[in-house]
Amino acid sequence: MKKSPLTFGRGLVLSVMEGLMFAGFIATADAQTAASGPLQVPAKTIAVPTDVSPELQKIIGAPLRTNWDLRPKTGEEWKPVADAGAAALIKNVPGMLERLKVKVEKTTIDGVRAFIVTPETIAPENANRQLIHMHGGCYVLNPGEASLPEAIFMAGFGHIKVISVEYRMPPEAYFPAALDDGIAVYKALLKAGPAKNIAWFGTSAGGALVLEMALKARELGLSMPGAIASGTPMSDVTKVGDTFQTNAMVDNVLVSPDGFCDAGTIVYAKGHDLNDPLLSPVYGDMHGFPPTILTSGTRDLLLSNTVRVHRKLRQAGVEAALQVYEGMAHAHYIRDDRTPETKEVFEEIAGFFDRHLGK
Amino acid sequence: MKKSPLTFGRGLVLSVMEGLMFAGFIATADAQTAASGPLQVPAKTIAVPTDVSPELQKIIGAPLRTNWDLRPKTGEEWKPVADAGAAALIKNVPGMLERLKVKVEKTTIDGVRAFIVTPETIAPENANRQLIHMHGGCYVLNPGEASLPEAIFMAGFGHIKVISVEYRMPPEAYFPAALDDGIAVYKALLKAGPAKNIAWFGTSAGGALVLEMALKARELGLSMPGAIASGTPMSDVTKVGDTFQTNAMVDNVLVSPDGFCDAGTIVYAKGHDLNDPLLSPVYGDMHGFPPTILTSGTRDLLLSNTVRVHRKLRQAGVEAALQVYEGMAHAHYIRDDRTPETKEVFEEIAGFFDRHLGK
Repeated sequence: MKKSPLTFGRGLVLSVMEGLMFAGFIATADAQTAASGPLQVPAKTIAVPTDVSPELQKIIGAPLRTNWDLRPKTGEEWKPVADAGAAALIKNVPGMLERLKVKVEKTTIDGVRAFIVTPETIAPENANRQLIHMHGGCYVLNPGEASLPEAIFMAGFGHIKVISVEYRMPPEAYFPAALDDGIAVYKALLKAGPAKNIAWFGTSAGGALVLEMALKARELGLSMPGAIASGTPMSDVTKVGDTFQTNAMVDNVLVSPDGFCDAGTIVYAKGHDLNDPLLSPVYGDMHGFPPTILTSGTRDLLLSNTVRVHRKLRQAGVEAALQVYEGMAHAHYIRDDRTPETKEVFEEIAGFFDRHLGK
Repeated sequence: MKKSPLTFGRGLVLSVMEGLMFAGFIATADAQTAASGPLQVPAKTIAVPTDVSPELQKIIGAPLRTNWDLRPKTGEEWKPVADAGAAALIKNVPGMLERLKVKVEKTTIDGVRAFIVTPETIAPENANRQLIHMHGGCYVLNPGEASLPEAIFMAGFGHIKVISVEYRMPPEAYFPAALDDGIAVYKALLKAGPAKNIAWFGTSAGGALVLEMALKARELGLSMPGAIASGTPMSDVTKVGDTFQTNAMVDNVLVSPDGFCDAGTIVYAKGHDLNDPLLSPVYGDMHGFPPTILTSGTRDLLLSNTVRVHRKLRQAGVEAALQVYEGMAHAHYIRDDRTPETKEVFEEIAGFFDRHLGK
């Protein structure tokens, strides 16, 4: 290796005209001095991505959710909306159970309604493990069996037993009812086996709830579970997060930060401060959290709220894995078990759990 | 379902019949049956995110890159553009060296121009490790010392020695010159120490080059390095990838899939098939790749091309970590070492290397 001293700011053979014309081409120097400001993004037409499965293309290519801007204002107003949505969703459940060879039983655990979701085959390494599922739906949607698809996918693809918590929602109860119900079920499971053999998972409100439960568990002096899977969490219901802007009208599920999901959360919170980490867990202290896997998609309105939790966990020294799927909007992966990307999502989560849970 | 009429915020009176209307509110059933199609996204104004550092806010809030739609058509046309850009960028280098306590020497390694980038303090665990840096710039930009910022950041934040390859670019040479130069330097380093003590890293074209080098190394029967860090890789220069659409005119660096970077790549490829995995590595077989860490941001035009490589690696059973930063557009993290998020990016990469490299 030949070494020679280096001179910086070397003379370049450049004409004055070229210098003027291209001085701003490489934006580095400019970007640090130019005035910062909002960006005007023109209207655009975006095609369905070609680099995802045909099954996912159908989901991504669907129109914006019907009535995405409906904003019921009370628990009572939400109930018929939730019931109608659930009625539509529940029709898909029997097919899911059959395809994934999973059975569901209704139960109560220390007074909390729950479903025990059991696959036909439990993997030998999972014999002494169980998962707690906190469903999504903006704290107001997906009552009863409508909460089950994600639990069924996890049980079926992961070959592991799942307890899905049918937590109380408005108008039956308000904040912190969902959180309290999740913690109650966890406490009950702790009586039967070690914390490190238990993991929690959920998507959207459920993705936030599992993070809120970790904050609450620490507050209560409970042992942390062995792992957590938080999917596209509603981790900041104060609506801070850049993809609330960039993916507005791109995410065909949530559509807008000012849509139905925001309205549902406000009803659940019932005046409680939305900045409370038990509602916006991204503001919580995540030191001591168990290993956590996060899932989102490139069109997800909550992509920012997912990656912010990932960074927060990493900053707190927590082992945290991030998976982001091409083209997916909010929670697209819990739609249809026949979508290959859905299988991939849950197999990744199952692998993560397997690497971190006790046996 | 309760049949009593309910009043909604918008003054709607909901009856059982309207309850049926809301059956589509939860989009699951709909999404699977509705016709898929392109989405019309209206124009919008997006504010600078408030949840990143002030330093990063300046970078995110900068206007779109000057002349982003300039499309030089030959190597000769690119040269003055590259030189002018480099002249602007090089002005920042002395400050970076001083702040990060890093020294740079120019050298040649088996005929390939390179820089040896050495921090004042090499961490004890890194004493027998070295990194190969492949710089970015669409295969045509950042000649000479303009290639150095990322190498300086890695050496300074990671306390590790870096060899930055000043690979040949148009008009001096065309595909596969950059790749060949990277491989030549790697072969030279292999004579001095084990592959597992070497990692490769790079951003943009450099992020693609380190993946292309892994494909080439396997083809040549060379040992794989101990780890790879690929930042916002130009992994698909055929312009497939959903964020080419969703982040068009949002990413203030690349701006559009049809801008200057595409033009540079076409000049470098000089008629070679852009689908070749040695130009679009997302199409390569990634079985047997070493542990790889990928970095992107929520406004990155190449977010899809980053997460697609992540998925491809995971599908091939490779240990792969993804980090996505709030609000960042393409390669924002290699702008300014004083940006706290930049330190975080490189410390994450350094930690990843430390966990996977031999000593």
